[in-house]
Amino acid sequence: MSFSKSFLQWLNTLSPVRMILFFYFIAAIFSTLLLCLPFAYQGGVEVPFIDIVFTAISALSVTGLSTITIADTLSTSGIFLLAFIMQLGAVGVMAIGTFIWLILGKKIGFKERQLIMTDQNQTSFEGMVRLIKQIVLVLFTVELFAFLILGTYFLKYFSQPSEAYLHGFFGTISAVTNAGFDITGSSLIPYKDDYFVQFIYMLLIIFGAIGFPVLIEVKNYLFKRNDKRATTHFSLFTKLTSFTFLVLIVVGTLVFYLLDMNHFLAGKTWHESLFYSLFQSITTRSGGLSTMDVSQLTESNQLWLSFLMFIGASPSSAGGGIRTTTFALVVIFIVTYARGGSSIRIFRREVHEDDLLKAVTVTLMALIFVFASVLFITTIEPFSITKILFEVTSAFGTVGLSLGITGDLTTVSKVILMFLMFVGRVGIITFLFMFKKTKKTGSYHYPKERISIG
Amino acid sequence: MSFSKSFLQWLNTLSPVRMILFFYFIAAIFSTLLLCLPFAYQGGVEVPFIDIVFTAISALSVTGLSTITIADTLSTSGIFLLAFIMQLGAVGVMAIGTFIWLILGKKIGFKERQLIMTDQNQTSFEGMVRLIKQIVLVLFTVELFAFLILGTYFLKYFSQPSEAYLHGFFGTISAVTNAGFDITGSSLIPYKDDYFVQFIYMLLIIFGAIGFPVLIEVKNYLFKRNDKRATTHFSLFTKLTSFTFLVLIVVGTLVFYLLDMNHFLAGKTWHESLFYSLFQSITTRSGGLSTMDVSQLTESNQLWLSFLMFIGASPSSAGGGIRTTTFALVVIFIVTYARGGSSIRIFRREVHEDDLLKAVTVTLMALIFVFASVLFITTIEPFSITKILFEVTSAFGTVGLSLGITGDLTTVSKVILMFLMFVGRVGIITFLFMFKKTKKTGSYHYPKERISIG
Ligand SMILES: [K+]
Ligand SMILES: [K+]
Repeated sequence: MSFSKSFLQWLNTLSPVRMILFFYFIAAIFSTLLLCLPFAYQGGVEVPFIDIVFTAISALSVTGLSTITIADTLSTSGIFLLAFIMQLGAVGVMAIGTFIWLILGKKIGFKERQLIMTDQNQTSFEGMVRLIKQIVLVLFTVELFAFLILGTYFLKYFSQPSEAYLHGFFGTISAVTNAGFDITGSSLIPYKDDYFVQFIYMLLIIFGAIGFPVLIEVKNYLFKRNDKRATTHFSLFTKLTSFTFLVLIVVGTLVFYLLDMNHFLAGKTWHESLFYSLFQSITTRSGGLSTMDVSQLTESNQLWLSFLMFIGASPSSAGGGIRTTTFALVVIFIVTYARGGSSIRIFRREVHEDDLLKAVTVTLMALIFVFASVLFITTIEPFSITKILFEVTSAFGTVGLSLGITGDLTTVSKVILMFLMFVGRVGIITFLFMFKKTKKTGSYHYPKERISIG
Repeated sequence: MSFSKSFLQWLNTLSPVRMILFFYFIAAIFSTLLLCLPFAYQGGVEVPFIDIVFTAISALSVTGLSTITIADTLSTSGIFLLAFIMQLGAVGVMAIGTFIWLILGKKIGFKERQLIMTDQNQTSFEGMVRLIKQIVLVLFTVELFAFLILGTYFLKYFSQPSEAYLHGFFGTISAVTNAGFDITGSSLIPYKDDYFVQFIYMLLIIFGAIGFPVLIEVKNYLFKRNDKRATTHFSLFTKLTSFTFLVLIVVGTLVFYLLDMNHFLAGKTWHESLFYSLFQSITTRSGGLSTMDVSQLTESNQLWLSFLMFIGASPSSAGGGIRTTTFALVVIFIVTYARGGSSIRIFRREVHEDDLLKAVTVTLMALIFVFASVLFITTIEPFSITKILFEVTSAFGTVGLSLGITGDLTTVSKVILMFLMFVGRVGIITFLFMFKKTKKTGSYHYPKERISIG
């Protein structure tokens, strides 16, 4: 029996959550080791170990929060290593998302999953491997096109073609994986008036954040014969997550504009205002790149962006947060129970109550994590609560926007942020599985008695 | 047919919520008119109308937030008028709480309610009137004793007996009703070293905040013959609310101490630290009086107090917020669903799932109200988000603590705070009834489809 085969068999004996943890920690150690290589840094640069770990975790969880300035610290080799870690993180995350979707969500009636699991008569593990291959293929195809377009376009900005294509390469990886790191030293601010670059970046960020199941369903729809398209049935998941994604972008843009129209956006033209608002709204889904310094926004707008980052991206995507679907289900939950109705319908489908309860649990737990983190960090840091809340939601949503305090935080705060990136990345549902009781507790029942909530 | 009889009959035709609204608005107008009387003010004092309305609403909702300094503004007659409005508010609130408990909660198996409703064969309206009489009697008895004790004790502080007893009178009303207004000009800071005064005040605040059903059950227990006590069964409601109340006070005290031990409490003796921490923890249940200037606390502690105020007091009490029971049920909800269990037990009783869902709905709605208010107020005020969050949770929890910005707020912000006091006071559950559909929507069902949250 070969080593790889017995390793695979050992993997199969692990519980799904332990397997995820195992892969995550192996990847974290591997990424940290990569960033410990001396040739990854520019000459004369010394980076403390905690910042190496932080950068590795930030890249692996495709968050993009950074305690160092990449452009001033990493060598070209280091930039390639960082891009590799981000790529690993994004594929891993999508794979993990799909994995959960396959293994844990057996009752979830996705057509695609059923196709893989039943029609092709494969074991779930083999099905997973096949799906990951599919993810990597789609990802690489999109990245290749984006790299060629951006790199070529950047010839306009850089005298050296190698520099232009390096920026095109790193920018593509950073946007598609939703990592949000930059090698410009100031995110996308150099392109604040270049709507073409921004448009490409927005498409790439959305691609990475909208969720793999949506991409697969859309791909299947596009590659179908024309006469069969009319009968195509998008899953409730795809409809709900895409609709929520769209609503969040539109409302995010609008409120962003309203909160800063007399401040940062004062005196800007309508198209400047539109692109600033739209780009920053999209980037809170989990992108993390920005076309402006967000610390220049009003405190209200920073609070608003914190809220958007807390929600984060769609499930099974490269993004974090509570997820768009969770947010949508919580809204549905509130509306339903506030109005006293019992049957919950969206897109002519009834939502299962268990899903609503799960969504509410996730949201409440996330609120507790965020509140506890903010409360704790404020006791050891001199920064305002708004700044700390922004940093915390940015880590939890794996967004990577910052009001500029990441580098000045103490080690304890950095560790908390790393923990939040991890939780935000694997998702609270997965995180909860670690503590889940496997055995049902007793089958006897106490007499019921109601409690008034008033 | 007499006028009062036909008025009562008209009242009976109103829906419970409309009846509450009707009483609240009548009381609000009446209170505002009282505070418009010229002799309520000291000579030469001019108070803007918005501040008169604000004070009236704040007193009626027994919040205690104030845009004016009572000691420098109101005459002795004005102080009596204010005490009267607070008393009216507290009785009204307890009555409304009990009213909801009687009329809306027909399925709630409280022994006491059943006694009133069934055994004595009364209509619900007559039962309510009888209960309100009982509330007023208990309240007045406690107030009389507290007034005599505090007034007599205050002879130590004031040369004039009339002044001592005025302070004893107002202090008693302010504490028992949990209004939290003061006529010292600096809350209870003059008594910061007088543990006897603080002890009496703490007892009075707890009395007002622990909830009327608890008081009734304890009273029944105390007045029972000794041999019958062993068989006394306290309701799940009383156990849960009292337990949560106690835990919140203890944890509140502990965290308060930890967050300020190196700051405000640095260099203080153990008993000073204990009383500062304990009193401020208790006052966040809804009291609003304080033995120190809370703006001197660390920002972390101010955030912590905001959290405690958001929870507020017990149901059917003189306090506001989401209520202690709601908080307890949300915690139970999270623990249960996070661990994947389905049967929820506390104190050897099974909790009804509908109550958990109600509690979660209330909490999420309250979070939305608070977040939206903070976001909106930050756009029009120059103060930090911590200060505004503190003010907003203080209004919603009808606590009345402030970091000192209430008087400087614009009219729009004052109106928002008044709205929050109203919602916090009548409770979100009652508030929701206003928008509740009375007719069930359709009985047909769409096919179910599950959604993954992850
Ligand atoms: K990111
Ligand atoms: K109060």
